[in-house]
Amino acid sequence: MAGSVLGDIFKITTWGESHGTAVGVVVDGCPAGLSISEEAIQAYMDRRKPGAIKYSTKRNEDDEIKILSGVFDGKTTGTPISMMVVNKDHRSADYSEIAEYYRPGHADYTFDMKYGFRDYRGGGRSSGRETIGRVAAGAIAMLLLKELGITVTAYTKSIGPVEVDMSKADMDYIVNSPVYMPDAEATKRAEKHLADAAAKCDSCGGVVECVVRGLPAGIGDPVFDKLDAGVAKAIMSIGAVKGVEIGDGFAAAGMYGSENNDSFYIKDGKPEKCTNHSGGVLGGISDGSDFIVRAAFKPTPSIASEQSTVNRNGEDIKIKVKGRHDPVIVPRAVVVVEAMTAITVVDMMLKRMTATVSAVKEFYDKK
Amino acid sequence: MAGSVLGDIFKITTWGESHGTAVGVVVDGCPAGLSISEEAIQAYMDRRKPGAIKYSTKRNEDDEIKILSGVFDGKTTGTPISMMVVNKDHRSADYSEIAEYYRPGHADYTFDMKYGFRDYRGGGRSSGRETIGRVAAGAIAMLLLKELGITVTAYTKSIGPVEVDMSKADMDYIVNSPVYMPDAEATKRAEKHLADAAAKCDSCGGVVECVVRGLPAGIGDPVFDKLDAGVAKAIMSIGAVKGVEIGDGFAAAGMYGSENNDSFYIKDGKPEKCTNHSGGVLGGISDGSDFIVRAAFKPTPSIASEQSTVNRNGEDIKIKVKGRHDPVIVPRAVVVVEAMTAITVVDMMLKRMTATVSAVKEFYDKK
Amino acid sequence: MAGSVLGDIFKITTWGESHGTAVGVVVDGCPAGLSISEEAIQAYMDRRKPGAIKYSTKRNEDDEIKILSGVFDGKTTGTPISMMVVNKDHRSADYSEIAEYYRPGHADYTFDMKYGFRDYRGGGRSSGRETIGRVAAGAIAMLLLKELGITVTAYTKSIGPVEVDMSKADMDYIVNSPVYMPDAEATKRAEKHLADAAAKCDSCGGVVECVVRGLPAGIGDPVFDKLDAGVAKAIMSIGAVKGVEIGDGFAAAGMYGSENNDSFYIKDGKPEKCTNHSGGVLGGISDGSDFIVRAAFKPTPSIASEQSTVNRNGEDIKIKVKGRHDPVIVPRAVVVVEAMTAITVVDMMLKRMTATVSAVKEFYDKK
Amino acid sequence: MAGSVLGDIFKITTWGESHGTAVGVVVDGCPAGLSISEEAIQAYMDRRKPGAIKYSTKRNEDDEIKILSGVFDGKTTGTPISMMVVNKDHRSADYSEIAEYYRPGHADYTFDMKYGFRDYRGGGRSSGRETIGRVAAGAIAMLLLKELGITVTAYTKSIGPVEVDMSKADMDYIVNSPVYMPDAEATKRAEKHLADAAAKCDSCGGVVECVVRGLPAGIGDPVFDKLDAGVAKAIMSIGAVKGVEIGDGFAAAGMYGSENNDSFYIKDGKPEKCTNHSGGVLGGISDGSDFIVRAAFKPTPSIASEQSTVNRNGEDIKIKVKGRHDPVIVPRAVVVVEAMTAITVVDMMLKRMTATVSAVKEFYDKK
Repeated sequence: MAGSVLGDIFKITTWGESHGTAVGVVVDGCPAGLSISEEAIQAYMDRRKPGAIKYSTKRNEDDEIKILSGVFDGKTTGTPISMMVVNKDHRSADYSEIAEYYRPGHADYTFDMKYGFRDYRGGGRSSGRETIGRVAAGAIAMLLLKELGITVTAYTKSIGPVEVDMSKADMDYIVNSPVYMPDAEATKRAEKHLADAAAKCDSCGGVVECVVRGLPAGIGDPVFDKLDAGVAKAIMSIGAVKGVEIGDGFAAAGMYGSENNDSFYIKDGKPEKCTNHSGGVLGGISDGSDFIVRAAFKPTPSIASEQSTVNRNGEDIKIKVKGRHDPVIVPRAVVVVEAMTAITVVDMMLKRMTATVSAVKEFYDKK
Repeated sequence: MAGSVLGDIFKITTWGESHGTAVGVVVDGCPAGLSISEEAIQAYMDRRKPGAIKYSTKRNEDDEIKILSGVFDGKTTGTPISMMVVNKDHRSADYSEIAEYYRPGHADYTFDMKYGFRDYRGGGRSSGRETIGRVAAGAIAMLLLKELGITVTAYTKSIGPVEVDMSKADMDYIVNSPVYMPDAEATKRAEKHLADAAAKCDSCGGVVECVVRGLPAGIGDPVFDKLDAGVAKAIMSIGAVKGVEIGDGFAAAGMYGSENNDSFYIKDGKPEKCTNHSGGVLGGISDGSDFIVRAAFKPTPSIASEQSTVNRNGEDIKIKVKGRHDPVIVPRAVVVVEAMTAITVVDMMLKRMTATVSAVKEFYDKK
Repeated sequence: MAGSVLGDIFKITTWGESHGTAVGVVVDGCPAGLSISEEAIQAYMDRRKPGAIKYSTKRNEDDEIKILSGVFDGKTTGTPISMMVVNKDHRSADYSEIAEYYRPGHADYTFDMKYGFRDYRGGGRSSGRETIGRVAAGAIAMLLLKELGITVTAYTKSIGPVEVDMSKADMDYIVNSPVYMPDAEATKRAEKHLADAAAKCDSCGGVVECVVRGLPAGIGDPVFDKLDAGVAKAIMSIGAVKGVEIGDGFAAAGMYGSENNDSFYIKDGKPEKCTNHSGGVLGGISDGSDFIVRAAFKPTPSIASEQSTVNRNGEDIKIKVKGRHDPVIVPRAVVVVEAMTAITVVDMMLKRMTATVSAVKEFYDKK
Repeated sequence: MAGSVLGDIFKITTWGESHGTAVGVVVDGCPAGLSISEEAIQAYMDRRKPGAIKYSTKRNEDDEIKILSGVFDGKTTGTPISMMVVNKDHRSADYSEIAEYYRPGHADYTFDMKYGFRDYRGGGRSSGRETIGRVAAGAIAMLLLKELGITVTAYTKSIGPVEVDMSKADMDYIVNSPVYMPDAEATKRAEKHLADAAAKCDSCGGVVECVVRGLPAGIGDPVFDKLDAGVAKAIMSIGAVKGVEIGDGFAAAGMYGSENNDSFYIKDGKPEKCTNHSGGVLGGISDGSDFIVRAAFKPTPSIASEQSTVNRNGEDIKIKVKGRHDPVIVPRAVVVVEAMTAITVVDMMLKRMTATVSAVKEFYDKK
């Protein structure tokens, strides 16, 4: 299978189930000498923690990250960084019923089809808790990017039909918005929409947008390992994501070339783009402007209203999904999108260092 | 760099530039015993060949595929299959001018930023001819899928603002449509739109949809190597693609959970889904229904109307891109989308064979 | 860096330092449905545990393995298996001195050259404790091989100049031998040699031989991923190994072709080899006879007698390495050789399942 | 299968059979800006060419290398370098007989066991011609190392029982020696031994030694991707190699720690080793002294004297292997050992550039 490993140089391996002993990640290939601490990583963890936002599951977890290896005197040593969160609140009783049937929109059926059985407790490996390892690894990637003057910022662009008017966006507001939107007014409408959905025992989806600022030109490889291709995989691998677009994305398909092309001009002696329809990437390689990616999240499949489904005995049944579920996962997913983007960008930035003989010579001439 | 290799078991390596001696691909890991021939592969090549459709470049190429290794007595041997197309019509003179400036929407600037210089003839490695290797490898993947009763079919869903009404789609019409649309009426409107664009020295984008039929449940791995994540990377790696979506895609973000969930029911004793909003994948693993992916292509960046840009001397200039360019690449890209989807699906199907101890035992008990 | 991940399908990632919180491993890609338990794995762990044999370090560790994920109802689920051993006895005080100088034969100098600093406590990542993750992962591989009727057995072939006469070997004696030799008389001589070395504050090396019995023909890929090439990497990656050979190994270089070739004959209607100079592999693919590999271990570099070396200030100094060190690591390394061989063989056996179209069809025809 | 791809950053894919149309290699990940030419690569090709040395096959091949992509204006562009040699002299008639039986010491039997059939013409993919791609890729690696002041030199250390006394070795003599030995007197004895073997319709093996000079300290990763582990895999993957050792190798197993440890001392203000028993590597990372590896080659399995074997019908038969075979492959394998060593070293040197945050910052601060 081997599907829990990602990256070439900055390589991460996540592990753990919703109701197992713990969940975690091993980061291999992080450069030595990066200052990291459990506190710095915890700050990212807290953004996806249950209860961090109003609309999240009532599961009671501190999600306290522990660094088990790879750090000495506060700095990464170049060896694997193992991080772990112990699962505290895993009341298996809540989930015993779902062992027998397939929840619509969940991976219950497909896991059974693939492996013949599954760890049905809380969704097992396909639980949202699987993202804990992603965020912990992403925190390290973001700390490394910070050293290079690069920021990765994501936010909720829409929830259900409620969309932020980006021309009025206030990035400082994001942390104050219970739904991580950069806009107070849209936040209110989104909260209203979510309240209505909750009243109907229903759930919502939404779109997360992520911007990488300060990325130098030249990151990403032609052909298969394009910057946008790598990010597309990383983002689409987040549970519940159904679409990924870069820059103008699907809208570009309806445009003319004369509209969509970004003209270059000289600014301070260097080429700049007049517009950024491309979303910061040309031919799979970063062009020095903001790298912009959007992810579409489907509505949370766990809903308390009645649904038709089948059980393992081959019978048609009606169910109501119980348990502690988010009416919308989008706000908590914001930091996951940041994490997956950062992990991919760091891996590509490391690979890019070997692209020219002159860089290789310069590096080794100093040895 | 290492960006021209894709896949874990069914592993392909493409090579070649627009105006080099040849372009090609090596397929390593194709199972032994598959019947293939140059003719069977040529049939796929011809669908992306310049001139195959009305709206394509005037470049004069036969794109005749040659198999150089890995086949004996008409069957694959399990060793690498090397395939090659010789570049016949590479008039470098056409392109000498663009050595000095950066075409908007192209990878000229980013290649220079990464490598310090570039093979500027016809776009070099970022040319559309790079897809020749993809299609040749994809042809092999599709021949293997055919043996397993699985079909991969793509078509043009929209060109510019002209969209096919899928409720009226006629799949048999695709090959008759000069724009590869499954609809005669939409084809006419698309042709009109393209003619208008051409008259204005402009270009168009569009959307390609691809359906995999017959795919068994259980393909794809949880976490990073999800079926949809792998396909997202493969599709986004095609030049000019700016967005990828699965099933309802971005539309799912605006729906309620009760709308978007696909209920299961029992049909002939087995679970089936009532609807297919998920596009055939749940938790990253195929669910046995049609796998559906869409790709948004930006308009061809090469346009004959005047554009602003800069040259390598740091001067603002005006240019008109000359040469033989497609006013829309979408119709020729249809087979490339099929190829990339097939390559990814085959690789995941091979990996899936090792998912259970019972399968491993069954295989080796026969030895 | 990314040097702590091994394998394609059965993929392991080890982590942890000698004096960190814990050491461990994540196994991704183990087929679902394998019965495993902490007890079954602990049996392998105990064979490399400090104090398990007379000649090992006096460090006081239980090396109690904990399974943190990937197992449900006593069976592997197909998701990553995370395993961990907490470091109990890590008295850092013992090691503070070596922070300042480079021990001959150790990786102190090379770590500093690569990373600029190092976790100097107990050798950090280059400690023998790094093999804990290897053995835990190897235990799983060996449990899987057992299901397939394949055994992996290693033993000490020589210590210093004392070599086992394999014609007299008694495999049942191995577990009774304090030095893991399959011969009582050689064991005595080896013990005498070790006692002499210890008296002189010196250390010894030796050779470990490993035999895989029951391996079917057809395992391993031509060219780079040959069975013997993969095992050579896996074995050479064990700290202190300086040589690897297959079958007759270096002795084959001195033989004639007529001596070294193994003739085939028909036995019970099937081809068998009359001899096994090849060590069970032809052209990188297993031939159905015993697969035989040998590893040469250098003497333990930590010795209590005086040595010349240098410190980080660029001064020539004299040192005596203190601490709790094995006078010979060979007996404890026996299970590590088994583990690395088993891990490699399992990965190749899984890959081999996809080698033919007929196997692919047979698998999917049942779906 | 996927066994014909090697390397992480500097990644090579070889293809081609003995009696197919052509053989070749694609090098992906070579840094841009390296000056290469067909002439420079041909110089390496000529050293393994049939007929280049007296004891090689009589097959008539020019082995003329063609570069098909990845080079522009005499420099690598950073995109895949495709290289090819057309097979001229492939008289299939010579080989028709061996389709039906299994030659001892060859991969005939194991290919059949794995794939169900094989390209039996001249050994197909397991032919010595498979090394053509290795040498072409290795030539590029060696040209890159030359830019960094690093040399890779291999030579024949022994043929059968005839061994070079390295204390008398004259490296300048190698190219004059028909058997690539650095010693005129040993050359004579080796030639005598080969003549005797040929007279008896027999064949010989031998040992090749390879020295990498000028390699900086810090190359190679701890744990699985050690420098010596990577080289062990690369060397063991050469057909006919049965053993690999580093530095003192198997001899180290018989030594005391006090003999085997290399003391450090200060020379010109920097640490140096007094001796080089380690062969230039400590803990898997280069230590700045010469990196030394030896490979044991078994005798050529194709011999003209009578051998027992079986055919595909399950009958015991007697055969004499006809055709054009080397009585010893060691001299022609010398350049193959150099190539595999160089390829591995380059890949590890590129990966090493990303090992520290300070190197990453230094690289990107200039952007």
